[in-house]
Amino acid sequence: MRLSPRTSVNTAARPRVVIIGAGFGGLEAARALRSVPVDITVIDRHNYHCFQPLLYQVATATLAPSDIAWPIRGILRRQSNATVFMADVTEVDVEQRVVHTDPLAIPYDYLVLATGATHSYFGHDDWAGMAPGLKQIEDATRIRRRILIAFEKAELSPDPAERQRLLTFVIVGGGPTGVEMAGAVAEVARQTLPPEFRNVDLRQSRVILLEAGPRILATFPDDLSAYAQRALERLGVEVRTSTAVTAIDERGVGTAAEHIDAGTVIWGAGVVASPAGQWVGAERDKAGRIKVGPDLAVPGRPEIFAVGDTAAVIGKNGHPVPGIAPAAKQMGRYVADVITARVTGRAAPAPFHYRHQGDLATIGRKAAVVKLKRIHLRGFIGWIFWGLAHIYFLIGIRNRFVVALNWLWNYFTFQRGARLITETGPTVQVSTDAVPPSAPQRGR
Amino acid sequence: MRLSPRTSVNTAARPRVVIIGAGFGGLEAARALRSVPVDITVIDRHNYHCFQPLLYQVATATLAPSDIAWPIRGILRRQSNATVFMADVTEVDVEQRVVHTDPLAIPYDYLVLATGATHSYFGHDDWAGMAPGLKQIEDATRIRRRILIAFEKAELSPDPAERQRLLTFVIVGGGPTGVEMAGAVAEVARQTLPPEFRNVDLRQSRVILLEAGPRILATFPDDLSAYAQRALERLGVEVRTSTAVTAIDERGVGTAAEHIDAGTVIWGAGVVASPAGQWVGAERDKAGRIKVGPDLAVPGRPEIFAVGDTAAVIGKNGHPVPGIAPAAKQMGRYVADVITARVTGRAAPAPFHYRHQGDLATIGRKAAVVKLKRIHLRGFIGWIFWGLAHIYFLIGIRNRFVVALNWLWNYFTFQRGARLITETGPTVQVSTDAVPPSAPQRGR
Repeated sequence: MRLSPRTSVNTAARPRVVIIGAGFGGLEAARALRSVPVDITVIDRHNYHCFQPLLYQVATATLAPSDIAWPIRGILRRQSNATVFMADVTEVDVEQRVVHTDPLAIPYDYLVLATGATHSYFGHDDWAGMAPGLKQIEDATRIRRRILIAFEKAELSPDPAERQRLLTFVIVGGGPTGVEMAGAVAEVARQTLPPEFRNVDLRQSRVILLEAGPRILATFPDDLSAYAQRALERLGVEVRTSTAVTAIDERGVGTAAEHIDAGTVIWGAGVVASPAGQWVGAERDKAGRIKVGPDLAVPGRPEIFAVGDTAAVIGKNGHPVPGIAPAAKQMGRYVADVITARVTGRAAPAPFHYRHQGDLATIGRKAAVVKLKRIHLRGFIGWIFWGLAHIYFLIGIRNRFVVALNWLWNYFTFQRGARLITETGPTVQVSTDAVPPSAPQRGR
Repeated sequence: MRLSPRTSVNTAARPRVVIIGAGFGGLEAARALRSVPVDITVIDRHNYHCFQPLLYQVATATLAPSDIAWPIRGILRRQSNATVFMADVTEVDVEQRVVHTDPLAIPYDYLVLATGATHSYFGHDDWAGMAPGLKQIEDATRIRRRILIAFEKAELSPDPAERQRLLTFVIVGGGPTGVEMAGAVAEVARQTLPPEFRNVDLRQSRVILLEAGPRILATFPDDLSAYAQRALERLGVEVRTSTAVTAIDERGVGTAAEHIDAGTVIWGAGVVASPAGQWVGAERDKAGRIKVGPDLAVPGRPEIFAVGDTAAVIGKNGHPVPGIAPAAKQMGRYVADVITARVTGRAAPAPFHYRHQGDLATIGRKAAVVKLKRIHLRGFIGWIFWGLAHIYFLIGIRNRFVVALNWLWNYFTFQRGARLITETGPTVQVSTDAVPPSAPQRGR
């Protein structure tokens, strides 16, 4: 066992910064502190950082999980003032300034809460089993499994009504996640797969996007949102705005007007912050986010910060800072600046100011919408911009190369390379699963 | 619903060939029948064909599952006389000539059993939970998870004895699978990961390869088998031949001489055929393989064939045909020839004759052993040959490209691209799992 003084948890000579969560915000904070004389401990319950904006491409079988996720240790490999622990936080003792995990208790001088958000079912937690959301790698492989199994079961089913139910996909929520999922599911069902099925015509698949508000992509300008709706409809997606979901059960989705028989329901409607706010006893908004001060610190606890989806921040325009990756990264970097100033005795930086760089969403092949400050892009140009931007923000040369290769391959062949039905698990409630993994038959 | 006559299961006008299992043997049979006037149904419990020779690279985080697995439907996409069903076979009615699945009953004129093999624990089925084998994608991701979690737990553990136990990996069985796993685990533990851990020195990891026989790689000539042992030892693997395992439990592995405290045990010692022989009531050898006739048909059932690991075949040299991919492919192609001859009224082919093309095994970076007829290769040349041969036998341009890219990247950077701890499941009995997936903390 090699113990260096900086990692001996109870005897740190330099200020100790503990960062909980290695998403965009937490990781950015850790990297921005790389040259600062502090000892950083990054704690995450996963061993990887996930590039969430491309999760929907894992869920729809274009990319593999390892294309969009990197080991946190690998990212911080050369940052000698950073230690990574894969662990669950059980408690934070704000008086003693200790983060409790199993088995370690980790003292801090500064604490950064960057634990992200999870799905919110607006009080209908019973919907979670039927309508999985898309926040983590496991969510994506679970949704991929459900979608692919629906097609397999339809091919086997002798009952026309059951076949149509299996081939009906409802996506709830018309934000970027819902729009991207709807477009990708429609492409898989109506372009990629039909030549491979003999008994069932997958072109009969229905993909229905439900949005409670009056238009999809509400954060985009009217013209782009209208374009996105037309582009989805060209792919065969039925877009229903001003349509709230009132029920979700094993047979499908209910709205005020009708019941939609559907084999697969995907949730893209709401998120709620992780319980980090409860750990530290901070005041929270109704989405569970900590109401931080202008320096992103918890009021009354200047040594505790919250960033990303864990923090409720109002921008200069009076609107909440959106829960997107660039916002989390800006907050992470800002908190690193605040800590650096305090550690080095320099003046504190000006209050946090969020700079909105733009909004992007892709609909499908050759169709995306991009809003930069005064620039609206759409169609093929928007799609190319969207692709280049996402490649640019991926971490690591290998992943950029592999993702670009997969996209080119998909573009030219209409194929998808990651169409595996794997990874069953206790949280996978696939009511449509006819193929239990325990049966004796095996491929060789 | 589009029903074409050839796929309407009960009214086929052409002879119906049902192939159970889309491994190397079953898939080769299906492809070899592509121009023959038969209706083929391929049934597999997975939706993909897995390239098993590279499974160990998934288990050791170099490749992603989708790099070595392809949807069966995609492979047979353009073969219009083939229908694919993802289903479990529940029963074969050999009198009525019907394969029963849920929900379809599929009649056959010819039946090909290509259901492969699974691990055999020589009567110690209770070892299965502690010592997973490596036959399927799920096995590989499960082993990957165990190995990576062992390092994570060692980094967190305050107890030196527990750390050393977690950093001890025992591989049981000195055949190609065991040798390849031992070499790859040693590289991960002693080369890839040490710079990323701060509290524990992974170079203290022990990798122990246990082989009951007098030498490893028993099917290879003496000189190559001795070279392989030296190459493993250079990587730091402790190779113990003539050492049979007598016990496996949560704490490790017992042999006649000692008890080895180990956090991870991997099984590469024995296989047993799937129960296809029971389905058709055929006579089987003690490994469960069907004793087929010279035309690979079940004695007394000339319409039922067995190929690959499902069949017990004695070669001209008096030795059993080995359970390797080329043998399964040769059998699949031969059975397709027999069926073609019967369907077209041509003379039956000569009895099956297995042509052994050679043996390959890799130990690690720049080290492999290759035995072709009179040629023995080893070291760097053997390694290059091994790599090219495997790339060549992969299916699809994309996969060849991605696998080659990953290998090059691994070669030059010593990194591994698929180091994700994911895919928990009910069959994963990770007694060392300190990080349950149900906890509330989330990365963003």
